[in-house]
Amino acid sequence: MDERLRQIAEFCKVIDGEKFVQRRTFLTDGERLENDAEHAWHMAVMALLLSEYANDDIDVLKVVSILLIHDLVEVYAGDTFAYDEEGKKSQRQRELAAAGKLFSQLPEDLAKRFRGLWDEFEEWESPESKFAHALDNFQPLMLQHASDGRAWREGGRRLSEVLKRNERSAEGSEKLWNYAFENFITPEIEKGNLIDDRGAVSE
Amino acid sequence: MDERLRQIAEFCKVIDGEKFVQRRTFLTDGERLENDAEHAWHMAVMALLLSEYANDDIDVLKVVSILLIHDLVEVYAGDTFAYDEEGKKSQRQRELAAAGKLFSQLPEDLAKRFRGLWDEFEEWESPESKFAHALDNFQPLMLQHASDGRAWREGGRRLSEVLKRNERSAEGSEKLWNYAFENFITPEIEKGNLIDDRGAVSE
Repeated sequence: MDERLRQIAEFCKVIDGEKFVQRRTFLTDGERLENDAEHAWHMAVMALLLSEYANDDIDVLKVVSILLIHDLVEVYAGDTFAYDEEGKKSQRQRELAAAGKLFSQLPEDLAKRFRGLWDEFEEWESPESKFAHALDNFQPLMLQHASDGRAWREGGRRLSEVLKRNERSAEGSEKLWNYAFENFITPEIEKGNLIDDRGAVSE
Repeated sequence: MDERLRQIAEFCKVIDGEKFVQRRTFLTDGERLENDAEHAWHMAVMALLLSEYANDDIDVLKVVSILLIHDLVEVYAGDTFAYDEEGKKSQRQRELAAAGKLFSQLPEDLAKRFRGLWDEFEEWESPESKFAHALDNFQPLMLQHASDGRAWREGGRRLSEVLKRNERSAEGSEKLWNYAFENFITPEIEKGNLIDDRGAVSE
């Protein structure tokens, strides 16, 4: 039996777990929450369609690969809600431990390749990483608007939080960030689903 | 406003519908059925890991692109169960109509590209199409085995049906097909979850 193939096939079974990691974004039906696998698929297709809007020239296969695997560590580390400031403090340590456990199940060359893609995403430095992050922010904004701002409304979310989460989105794609601000964020402010705290006195 | 970007963004919203198209394969928990988006994501990651097992040299970006979009038409046409002989008679017509309706929502150049990838998959001729089909068969076999053959057992499925569905799998990857036969199919025959009708008198 091919031991290498057995090892890869076992890994493929383990990552099925990504389908059980729930995010905090509602799908377009406004009823069901998205899971990590659905999110990754959606962004990978979007990368095929939107790569021309990246600020820099990008390697599309690398962007798609990064998007497909960027949440794999959550099979062990779980999803950390973007607005959970407590959870985010331990996120890096939890995800590093998960990455070590997960990728080491692959043959060495593939472990190195996948770990490299994940590290590249996390480092937020290469044009591909920046564009992947831009999409990782654009896609949930699109779904927030498509689901009538439900998660923002129910979470009492403020614009300043959304802007903070998106403070580097324009580094990957100014055009996508501008589009999202005008077409996904602004209408939800107008409908009262997102609290506009831009004029608020800071605490 | 950028009309081209608006058109692509609208398309990205429409394809969210793929997350609601249910397949007949149980996930590794043996409880929940997989949907099309999860299936496409899983195979795209598997293509990154398993491309070395293709019979021919393949363009990995093309294979991944094909896998990511090969079920998009089901947003309108629905899933056709692999063992539903009646449904399969109308499948091609339903999917052609869906492809026309779906891809025409994209700007012309992108519509042509996506339609081309989908046609290439359907034609089953290029090395990339053959490998994509090999994975499209390998991944559900892996899940069948991981979910203890539940869908086969409950469906009273026979080996001859599984072999018929897989009659061209080896054209994309002999190694993956052999691995699947030995490691996913054979154990389920031994456990009695798949009926071995190889010795049966034909009707």
